[in-house]
Order: sequence, then structure tokens, then C-alpha cells
Amino acid sequence: MTKRSWWGWGWVDAAVGAAERAGLAGRLPPHWVGDPVPVPRIEDLRLRAPRVEPPAALATICSTDPEDRAGHTYGKAYRDVVRALAGDLPEPPDLVAFPRTEADVVDLLDWAGAAGVAVIPYGGGSSVVGGVEYRGGAHPGVVSVDLTGLDQVLEVDRVSRAARIQAGALGPRLERQLSGHGLTLRHFPQSFEFSTLGGWLATRAGGHYAMRHTHIDDFVEALRVVTPVGISESRRLPASGAGPSPDRLFLGSEGALGVITEAWLRLQDRPTHKASAAVRFRTFADGLGAVRAIAQSGLEPGNCRLLDAAEAAINAGVRDGSSVLVLGFESADRPVDAGLARAVELATDHHGTYPPVSTRDTPDRPDAVGAWRSAFLRMPYLRDALARLGVIVETIETACTWDRATEVCETVRAELGDAIERVCGEPGIVTCRTTHVYPDGVAPYFTVIARGRRGAEVSMWDDIKAAAGDTLERLDATITHHHAVGRDHFRWYDRQRPRPFGAALLAAKNSLDPRGILNPGVLFH
Amino acid sequence: MTKRSWWGWGWVDAAVGAAERAGLAGRLPPHWVGDPVPVPRIEDLRLRAPRVEPPAALATICSTDPEDRAGHTYGKAYRDVVRALAGDLPEPPDLVAFPRTEADVVDLLDWAGAAGVAVIPYGGGSSVVGGVEYRGGAHPGVVSVDLTGLDQVLEVDRVSRAARIQAGALGPRLERQLSGHGLTLRHFPQSFEFSTLGGWLATRAGGHYAMRHTHIDDFVEALRVVTPVGISESRRLPASGAGPSPDRLFLGSEGALGVITEAWLRLQDRPTHKASAAVRFRTFADGLGAVRAIAQSGLEPGNCRLLDAAEAAINAGVRDGSSVLVLGFESADRPVDAGLARAVELATDHHGTYPPVSTRDTPDRPDAVGAWRSAFLRMPYLRDALARLGVIVETIETACTWDRATEVCETVRAELGDAIERVCGEPGIVTCRTTHVYPDGVAPYFTVIARGRRGAEVSMWDDIKAAAGDTLERLDATITHHHAVGRDHFRWYDRQRPRPFGAALLAAKNSLDPRGILNPGVLFH
Repeated sequence: MTKRSWWGWGWVDAAVGAAERAGLAGRLPPHWVGDPVPVPRIEDLRLRAPRVEPPAALATICSTDPEDRAGHTYGKAYRDVVRALAGDLPEPPDLVAFPRTEADVVDLLDWAGAAGVAVIPYGGGSSVVGGVEYRGGAHPGVVSVDLTGLDQVLEVDRVSRAARIQAGALGPRLERQLSGHGLTLRHFPQSFEFSTLGGWLATRAGGHYAMRHTHIDDFVEALRVVTPVGISESRRLPASGAGPSPDRLFLGSEGALGVITEAWLRLQDRPTHKASAAVRFRTFADGLGAVRAIAQSGLEPGNCRLLDAAEAAINAGVRDGSSVLVLGFESADRPVDAGLARAVELATDHHGTYPPVSTRDTPDRPDAVGAWRSAFLRMPYLRDALARLGVIVETIETACTWDRATEVCETVRAELGDAIERVCGEPGIVTCRTTHVYPDGVAPYFTVIARGRRGAEVSMWDDIKAAAGDTLERLDATITHHHAVGRDHFRWYDRQRPRPFGAALLAAKNSLDPRGILNPGVLFH
Repeated sequence: MTKRSWWGWGWVDAAVGAAERAGLAGRLPPHWVGDPVPVPRIEDLRLRAPRVEPPAALATICSTDPEDRAGHTYGKAYRDVVRALAGDLPEPPDLVAFPRTEADVVDLLDWAGAAGVAVIPYGGGSSVVGGVEYRGGAHPGVVSVDLTGLDQVLEVDRVSRAARIQAGALGPRLERQLSGHGLTLRHFPQSFEFSTLGGWLATRAGGHYAMRHTHIDDFVEALRVVTPVGISESRRLPASGAGPSPDRLFLGSEGALGVITEAWLRLQDRPTHKASAAVRFRTFADGLGAVRAIAQSGLEPGNCRLLDAAEAAINAGVRDGSSVLVLGFESADRPVDAGLARAVELATDHHGTYPPVSTRDTPDRPDAVGAWRSAFLRMPYLRDALARLGVIVETIETACTWDRATEVCETVRAELGDAIERVCGEPGIVTCRTTHVYPDGVAPYFTVIARGRRGAEVSMWDDIKAAAGDTLERLDATITHHHAVGRDHFRWYDRQRPRPFGAALLAAKNSLDPRGILNPGVLFH
């Protein structure tokens, strides 16, 4: 079995090698690119000595191994990778706990509550918003609770197409267990390999589907959450009108209200009919018009991603200046040709053009579709490689209603551009695509590539990010559609959240976590 | 303009007359039916004198008129109608306030908070669970706040297909204002004419659609809520991952956390393509199998209601002992024949039979479909007429996952039958239909018709209802899918709600409503 990287994305073996790195570097201005920063050796990190000891009963599930501690210090944002590569890990968790049972989680919370030790629930560790990082505070110790030992599909209800699944299951582990039953969750965030069900639930992750089932929220039938005051378990129901939804309080609670240990999830049959197409547009605005028409048609494509010209050139091999709309339909019940044909028709009504591709069932993927898919999964590895070369690479995402969609895309792109020039001293690359669409709006996603200055990358990125956050706030867009709040978004989240609701949520927090041990700094300051 | 009934459903003019009453009575065992109870005259009610006076600034919007007070004492459950007809109104609101602006609502809450007066938000007053009824407690006064004066569509965003609408708008008023823009909310609960947007939001109402858009929750883009500690206004977004959803805390809060004054709602284009069909099944279990197959196919019919044989005979004119599945599809974008044909095919795969009806676009409605629709809207008036004749008529609804669907339908039916025999001394009529369906489950709905004893109807019904509530709890079904909790369901709701969540919700309540004036007895005891 290959090994997970403690400082960067994914598998050590899958990291970008010398040849791929040279190819990447060759696509950027030469003066942006330096020699790759060496990865520090664990033994050179000199982590702060653990300040707390677990009680004897928990000792066997707690690690003070430096690689465990270093690997659980940060998530996987660009700024996390840069800091890890620099050996900048001043506040590692004192302990990393690996519970094997829910009872272990209960015991950990009991001990941490009595000792005042901060508890950071940790799934796959793929947070890009500082969601799993202890960042200052008065706690005498910090324990990162790695839930990946709780990775079983415990029960499958084939009739209702639902399963009870432990929260620590990583994407592939979860899908492998379901596939034996002919079922699938089909929640495929970009982090799929390296994120867990519990992480998806706690952060309201956005998955594979561009429409309909966007966030994991709608797949949830019931949740089981260990809180410091007891276990909260909701009843398994397809829907209910009995008071405010208990599950919706914990969805998006990011480990600050409890540790999700299990959930009943709604599943689907594996799709057997698929059809996809790529439509080109002369302008991004035309493409947005087409996406809106499709989103409001009720067709509900599974894939509906609009790439701007820069994104299309870099990641879908379309280099004629077009924006590209990648469309896909799928069904386990019946052919989907008619839906795809109607969507393409709506797109051409909005000035889209497309090669006379076949829309028959399960065609070969048109090139742009396949190219996009491969690039998508490789991106985080490329990000790490570029970070090592001294290039700033990061993403920003949001959502807004259609009436402001073009303005949000153009303003964020322009103001990101301005911020990059101000911070980096020269223009950078800003691309835009849409990740999820709704009848009433869209989720735009921006990628920034810019010239870094060695040693200053984190503060440079933070300045660029702050400008973008302020822009989103001014435009009344959300600070996050599916990357969560963590610690990096708190400033804007706090202003986005209605004040009385914020007070009510804090009251709920104090009720569930009276000693303030759960993921301190997340959702509340 | 015709007048609303203070004691029963809907318009005074639409009440069942002598001829229709005789027809109704003729369908029941003669010994169940007595002379119609007379409707008491307002001047004979002798309501308790108002115990509080509004401050001068609010006097013009506050009424002590006996008909206003009597009409705002109860909702419109069977037990409410019986009590009103008996002149049994020991705790009427001392005042009925009719705010004209949101500022009036703020002023009302300020005054009530200072005076410790209980505030009962009141929309259309169609609650069937004691949601708008003050029921004992230490408050020195009670004000019912009738929001129907706030009934405007304030803003329409045609591009995003959304509108900002005041919460007091009754269904028809709301749809009339939207129709000028070619848009519709298409949320049609049975109470449509006599319930408000704010009521739907506060109770998580179930609408027209059998699938997809079942509860009003999913239509909500943003909410504006007046709480005693300030106004909570969420940002208008198609979706967001920024922490637990603020809107989901207020959806289902039933007036206990604040008064909803406005919402941004997602709208739709008016459908131009429709197709419907009625499929018959020899057994209800076969029908459930078909409904499950359709629900799991991804077809998402707008209408998918299965009536058992008794329901089909009474309300759809199908008297051959069949269960009947009423299917409907609609679209503003394209023909829906193919979807209907596939659904019918799935139904026949599950032993359904259907006359060779046309499935072409916008056909004449097959008889069973049309008959069902007319009966549906007339039902509450018939209920009132039967109540006046001394017959017990009420409904119970729930939801459960598919693995338990047949068991829940059969057990509830059987145990309701047992309870009726025990309480009424002879068998009654129990019918079952499904109102909403999901890929993972279904919402069954039961109607009870039984012989009452004059003067004992309320306690008789409460005994039957208690048996049903206990059955649902034992079967782990929800105590309500779309009728809300109110005061009548609290006992079971309290056990259904996870304990730590209940404590957190109470903490939120105390934060938003520190003096405990908002709809006391609802969601919390």
C-alpha cells in the first residue's frame, strides 16, 4: 500500500515527478518558477513536545509520532502546503487519537472535557479553509481525533436504498462496500479519495452532480453525533415536518457542535445510461445564459460545468478562445439522449455551437469532456508541485443568484486580477468556471496562478484572498458554496450570518459543548 | 366579498347546505348521524373580558371584537371545530393585532416583551395541531398577531425566478400577484386558500407536488424574521455551505423563535405541458411497490398519489375494490408524455392495470383524477358538516422509509380500527392514501370517520389520536410529515427529537426569546 503525504495532497507515489514538473513549469513565465523547495525530513521538524498525556485507558489509541502530529497539523490549502514545506508548524496537535469505536470517541470527549483539552475532529484532512488546524487559544493541549478507523458500512437497506455508514469512511472505501449491493452514494467531490463521509457532512461538501444533489445535505436520512453532553441520534426518515430539522443543525457545524460518527445516507442505483456533450460559446456571458436556461428547464443534468476560455485552454484542450460547457446526463432507469438533446438545443438557442457529436447512449466521451475530467482529479497534485516551485496557486468559490451572476464573475475576476498585480507586482492568471447550478443561481469557482516570492507566499495569498472575500461580501455572494468556513473564512462568515441567528447558534454551541473544547475557532471566535 | 367562518373551514358561503348534508348523511350508517348542531351566535359566546390593553400607539391595530377573538382562539382541527361549535372557548386571545407593517410587528413584540404578554403568530389560522391556540400558562395576557395585512409581493427577480414576498399573503393572493410576471410558486397545500406563506414556512408545509418539491423548505432562498432580540435576515443565495443553514432553524419553528415577515422564494414558469393517468391495483401493497419503483426511477412525477380501496371509492369514484394510483407530470419546457408512459410502464410491471387512456399532452383528465381533485378541495367543508352531525372525522399523517412502508400502513390502519372500536363502541371507517413520495420512503395519510357521542367528541378523538401517536412512535415513523407539531403533537415530538438537539434548540429559543413570549407551549414545554 502506498503512503499518504504528510505535507501535501494525496499519495506520496502520485506526487508530480521531475518530467511532469518540467512540463508544468514550461507553461508558465520562466521568472515565476524557481527550484523546487525540498520536502523537510520529519526528524528535522522539531515539533513542540507534547504538553498533555492521555489517560492510560486511551493511551493505546493515541499517537505522539512526529509524522502523525505533523500530518494532522494542517489541512490541504495552498497556505497549508507552503507552511508545511517551510517546516512552519508551531502548533501541532499534542496527540493524534485514532478511535476504533464510537465508545472511544465518547471516552476521548469525556477526558478532553475534564482536562480542558481542545478536540479537533479530523476526517481525511482535506480542508482548504483551516478547518482542522488549532490556531492559538488558551487550551492546555490539543488532540486531533482521526476518525478514519471508523470506516464501515454497517447496514444496507436495499428496499429503501439507504445505508448506515461510519463517518470515518474515505470515499473509495465507502463506495467499495456499497458496490457489492449494486448501490452508490455518487458523492464525488474533488477530494473524494482523501476525504470522509463525516467530513463531507460536517462541511456540507459539494459533490459530483452539478444540479439537484449538489451538497451532501440532501442525501442525509439520519445522523448520529457524539457531543460532550451526550449522543444525538435522529430518527431515520425520508422527510419530516416535526420542528426545525435536527440534522440541519449538525450539517455544516464543522466539528464545533459534536463529532459525527454515523449517518444513514440515501443511495442510488448505478447509472447504466450516460450521454455527454461539450458546447462552445464565444463569450462566457453567452455560456452563462445557456446554463441558466438549462438550469431553469427542469432537465437537471448531472454535469453542467461552464469553463471560461482560460480554464478551457488549460484543462480541456480547447484553445480557440471559446468558453466550453460540459454537459452530462445519466440514469439507471432509461436512455438519456432526449434530455441531452434538449439541453444542447437550449445551449444553441444561446449562441452555443457544437460539433455534430453523437448524443447516443454511452458514447465515447467527446475530447473536451474527457480532458476536463482527467485534469480535474490531477489538479491538487499539480498545485503542490507549483507550490514547491514558488508559484501561488489557489482557488476561491462562491454562489449567487442569476441576476448577479455575470457581475459576480466579472467583478471577482477583475478584482482578483488587481489584487494579484498589487501583491505580486505583475499580472497573474485568473480562470473561472461554474461548479454547480441551480434554477435561481450558480456557483462560480476561480483559480488563481501568480508569481510568489519565496518566504512571503502565505501573506501574499492571504492578501489576495482578503481582497476576494471583501469583493464577495460587497456583492452579497456567499463566502463559500462548498469549501466551508473553517478559520480562514470566519471574518466574512460572521458578517454573512444573521446576527440573531449567530447568537442562537452560539447558545446552541454552549449547550452542547459547555467547556468549549470542540474545534475552537471554528464558527465562533 | 364573502366572509370567513369564525368556527369552521373557509368561506361562510361555501359551507355545506341542507341538500349536500343530507347526501353526506345518507352515505353513513343512520345511527351515526344526528341533527346538525347549531352554530352559536357570537353574542352568546360570553368570552372572557380582555385582560390587557395595548399601548396607545398600537391601539389602532388591535381589536377586541368578539368575532375576531373567537375566530383567533383555535385553528381548524376537528377538535377545534367541535369546541367552537360548543361555545367552548375559555382562553380566547385578549387582543387580536392586525399589523400593517413589519415595524408594527417589532412594536408589538417590544410591548409584549415588556408586559410579559404571550404572542401567537397567526397566518391563515388553518393549523390542525393546536398551533395557534393559547393553552394555559402564566402569561397575564395573550395577543394573536394576524399577519394577513402583510400580503404583498414586494419584488420580483425574473432572471433568477424569485420573489420577495410578505409572509401574510394567503395562497391565492400570492399567486395572483405572481401570475402577472408569468411565474408561480406552485405550492398548493389543501389549505391553499386559507393559509399564508408565513404559515407554510413556520410549519414546513407540504404542497402540491408529490415528489421533489414536497415541503416549502426547498423553495426558500432567504428569510426575514422578527425576533424579540432583533431582525434576522439571511442573504439571498441559491445555495451555501457557510455553516449550519440559518433558514433551516426558522423553518419549522412554528412561531416559537420569531415572526417570519418576509421571504425570498424560488419560483417556476407556469407549466404548459401536462399529462396524467390513473392506474389500478388489486392490492394496496402492489400499489406501494409501483410507487416505490417510480420514486426510485428518477422520473419525479408532480403527482403520485396512491389511494386505497376505501379512499378510491369515497373520493375517486372507483368502486371495484381497487387501489388507485393518480399520476401526473408537468413541464414548462417540453412534452411530458414519455415520462408518464415510463411511469405507467413501471406501474404495470408491479401488477397495475389501466384503461387504454391517452397519454398525449394536456389530455382531458381521466375521471378518477378529476374526481379526486374536486373531492380533495371540498374535504374540509364536508368535515365540518359531519362534525355538526356528530360524526368524528379527522386525519393523521406520517412518513417512513420504504422498508417499513407496508407495515406502517397496515399497523396504523389496524390499530386505528381497534382504537375506534374501543372508544366508539363500534367499528369506524379508516382510509389510507399516500401524499408525498421519496426515493427512500413515503408519507402515508389516514382518514378516520367514526361515530361520535355528543359532548364527548373531543376526548374521544384525543383517545384515538393518542393510540395512533403511540403506534407511530413504536414504528419509528415521524409524528408529522407536514401537519406540524403544534401543541397536539408535542408529547411524541419531544420523544422523536434527539435529546441533545432538544437542549440546543431550547438554548437557541432562550437566546432569541429571553422572556418566553413567543407561542408558548409550542416546540417547548
